[in-house]
Amino acid sequence: MTKKLVKPTTLSGFMELLPSDQILFNNIMDTIRENYEKYGFLPIDTPVIEREEILLAKGGGETEKQIYKFKKGDTDLALRFDLTVPLARYVSQHFSELTFPFRRYQIGKVYRGERSQKGRFREFYQCDIDIVGNQKLDIINDAEIPSIIYSTFKDLGFDEFIIKINNRKLLNGFFQWLGVEDTGQVLRIVDKLEKIGSEKVKKELREIGLQDEVVEKILEFMMINGSNSEILGKLKAMEVENESFNIGLEELSIVNKYVKTFGVPESNYSIDLTIARGLDYYTGTVYETFLDNYPDLGSVCSGGRYDDLAQNYTKQKLPGVGISIGLTRLFYQFREANIISSDCNTLTKALIIPMIDYLEESIEIANYLRIKGIMTQVYLEKGKMGKKFSYADKLKIPYVLIIGPDEVAENKVSFRDMKTGEQSLLSLEEVSDKLR
Amino acid sequence: MTKKLVKPTTLSGFMELLPSDQILFNNIMDTIRENYEKYGFLPIDTPVIEREEILLAKGGGETEKQIYKFKKGDTDLALRFDLTVPLARYVSQHFSELTFPFRRYQIGKVYRGERSQKGRFREFYQCDIDIVGNQKLDIINDAEIPSIIYSTFKDLGFDEFIIKINNRKLLNGFFQWLGVEDTGQVLRIVDKLEKIGSEKVKKELREIGLQDEVVEKILEFMMINGSNSEILGKLKAMEVENESFNIGLEELSIVNKYVKTFGVPESNYSIDLTIARGLDYYTGTVYETFLDNYPDLGSVCSGGRYDDLAQNYTKQKLPGVGISIGLTRLFYQFREANIISSDCNTLTKALIIPMIDYLEESIEIANYLRIKGIMTQVYLEKGKMGKKFSYADKLKIPYVLIIGPDEVAENKVSFRDMKTGEQSLLSLEEVSDKLR
Repeated sequence: MTKKLVKPTTLSGFMELLPSDQILFNNIMDTIRENYEKYGFLPIDTPVIEREEILLAKGGGETEKQIYKFKKGDTDLALRFDLTVPLARYVSQHFSELTFPFRRYQIGKVYRGERSQKGRFREFYQCDIDIVGNQKLDIINDAEIPSIIYSTFKDLGFDEFIIKINNRKLLNGFFQWLGVEDTGQVLRIVDKLEKIGSEKVKKELREIGLQDEVVEKILEFMMINGSNSEILGKLKAMEVENESFNIGLEELSIVNKYVKTFGVPESNYSIDLTIARGLDYYTGTVYETFLDNYPDLGSVCSGGRYDDLAQNYTKQKLPGVGISIGLTRLFYQFREANIISSDCNTLTKALIIPMIDYLEESIEIANYLRIKGIMTQVYLEKGKMGKKFSYADKLKIPYVLIIGPDEVAENKVSFRDMKTGEQSLLSLEEVSDKLR
Repeated sequence: MTKKLVKPTTLSGFMELLPSDQILFNNIMDTIRENYEKYGFLPIDTPVIEREEILLAKGGGETEKQIYKFKKGDTDLALRFDLTVPLARYVSQHFSELTFPFRRYQIGKVYRGERSQKGRFREFYQCDIDIVGNQKLDIINDAEIPSIIYSTFKDLGFDEFIIKINNRKLLNGFFQWLGVEDTGQVLRIVDKLEKIGSEKVKKELREIGLQDEVVEKILEFMMINGSNSEILGKLKAMEVENESFNIGLEELSIVNKYVKTFGVPESNYSIDLTIARGLDYYTGTVYETFLDNYPDLGSVCSGGRYDDLAQNYTKQKLPGVGISIGLTRLFYQFREANIISSDCNTLTKALIIPMIDYLEESIEIANYLRIKGIMTQVYLEKGKMGKKFSYADKLKIPYVLIIGPDEVAENKVSFRDMKTGEQSLLSLEEVSDKLR
């Protein structure tokens, strides 16, 4: 009977890694998690599937088209497309059981049925933190966030990166002051400055009916530069008479002052008035993070302050501030740009190769090493020594222990460094010291 | 404008935890992961969504009804219902890039639209390991698996548990020897022995057409007991003339011998001829694990040996052996049985409470402690001291550091043990030593 085989493939847009890359991926995820925990964020893990009504409470737009929807029985279900909407639902649902300010992190997969293209994924990990206040949340929290980005990217091995900070109240206030009515529309256009350049931005601003003079003033404003304190000085000197602008400026000044206190060197953050963030959602401080040597990657960590997290689920006013790292895309970009490459195919530190009839002694040595916390494997298959060594080679296991009659007679093991090829006869204690 | 609120709820059958329980849950998952890694298993992470054709390659039955299916564009998709089918697809797809024996672990969510009932979940974590051979896999691997179960449950804090071992070849061979034709049917019935009792099993066996004499012999066989070596002795003494029986007996003897070598105390494992495992899938050694003091939980870790992992996707013969821990259900059961309870609401070791105007000094102390690897938070909100202490209380943060004029003048901090209420003036070095 010949059975028809199903071709083993994954869906396009779904990342799947070989173990060597998976180890690397998990290391990055662990580093992010450790940093989030070091700052006192609590883990939560919401379901991947939610009622469609929950996920679409905010109402459609682009996202709605991308969402994975289906029915089970009579219920309309959907896969989460971010971790923010589930957070809003979570905080509303468990409101009375949480302690505020509620600092939570969540690392999990989200789903968007985007058009398939290189570097874009339909299933991807987001690594989010948010600090959610009950009724209010001090602006100082906005200054702590960059220190978490800083600590995380330092631990990921980067020194040269810039956390760019801006404030939406400042932008909106300025646009209002210029007489712009739909400030959201202007925000979405100027957000494209980096991407499409100033000429196209000007063109688009004119197309929505802004006067040339206003367009020039907007572009001039976005171009204000200098050190952080110089920028703040120039903004103050403008004497803009708009409440939103002045609140935004005050917030930005406080954030600027305390970011330093939170330990972020001046070389790793800057006020940048071109950072607008497309999302409607943000209402104050906004962040984007760029690696100096890899500008093509775009922002590797973004976020901001919002006034009201969960207005679709609760009457409680829940302001917050948070950031997100899109890990799957970031990993893909890191790999494409050769920022990372996997140099280990295994987590195993030592492979024990038993000679014929020395399986039991080999297993006992493995037991000993594992109790010492050393990741150890015994080669359990029968076969030629060459095949056993080739297994260690392929997996790049750094050390091999050979156990045979001579070793057992002397109560020692032959310890081979697979990189140098050096081999020596060592006691078990010596081996365990070397491996730790 | 009043907006209609969407009621914030999760779907029934989907576990969602408060942070205190999530910390506990994550600790268990971390312990399982550490143990899997200690034994040289490599991480993989397959997509949650696969083509329906992949997931249903084996063909329907009960599982097909439970599967979450949907369409995106023209493609029939489904959510994975276990981690074994994705493993089979993974190994077939990446066959030439993997090193065999391939030892992999995967910890991830799977989905089954089961009828909702207490303690049953539609989204749940499985924690799987498998050792997959290319063409063949030595029986010694079957003896290593119990040592991984042993090490994991010891690290989870259990001493009294039994890993029950049996062999399907032995059972099948015995049934064949008795003249049974459909041995699979008999297996599925005797698998219910624990659940429905021997009388009902007998009844069902008679109903499928077995003679009373055969039924009695089957039940007699299942009841063979004694120490492991006594059971093996009795099985040998039966002189069953059936090849499958004798191969099974030989395998069981080898596993029994080496399980000891792998460091599992005799008190933690036993040969049990009633362990059949319902799944067709297993072809040799089978395992189930029971906590002595909590028999109602049923098996907390099960698995076995299979001849051919991926016959639906590849012509390569891939025998393997593996186990699975259903973590979500296990966690639920642990909690219901009061085996675990969360005694911490946070990971934070120290909360720093700044007195008015001492925010900057407080933040600097937090920076110092975080660099030392201590999970630290600063209370950043304005407000009364009582409210700040109550935040530490609610989250059960063990230590509070108070920073004000006296502390700064003396270059010390007020260190309060929140359990005892003791407070002392300490230097930063003393605090950091105490907290580590």
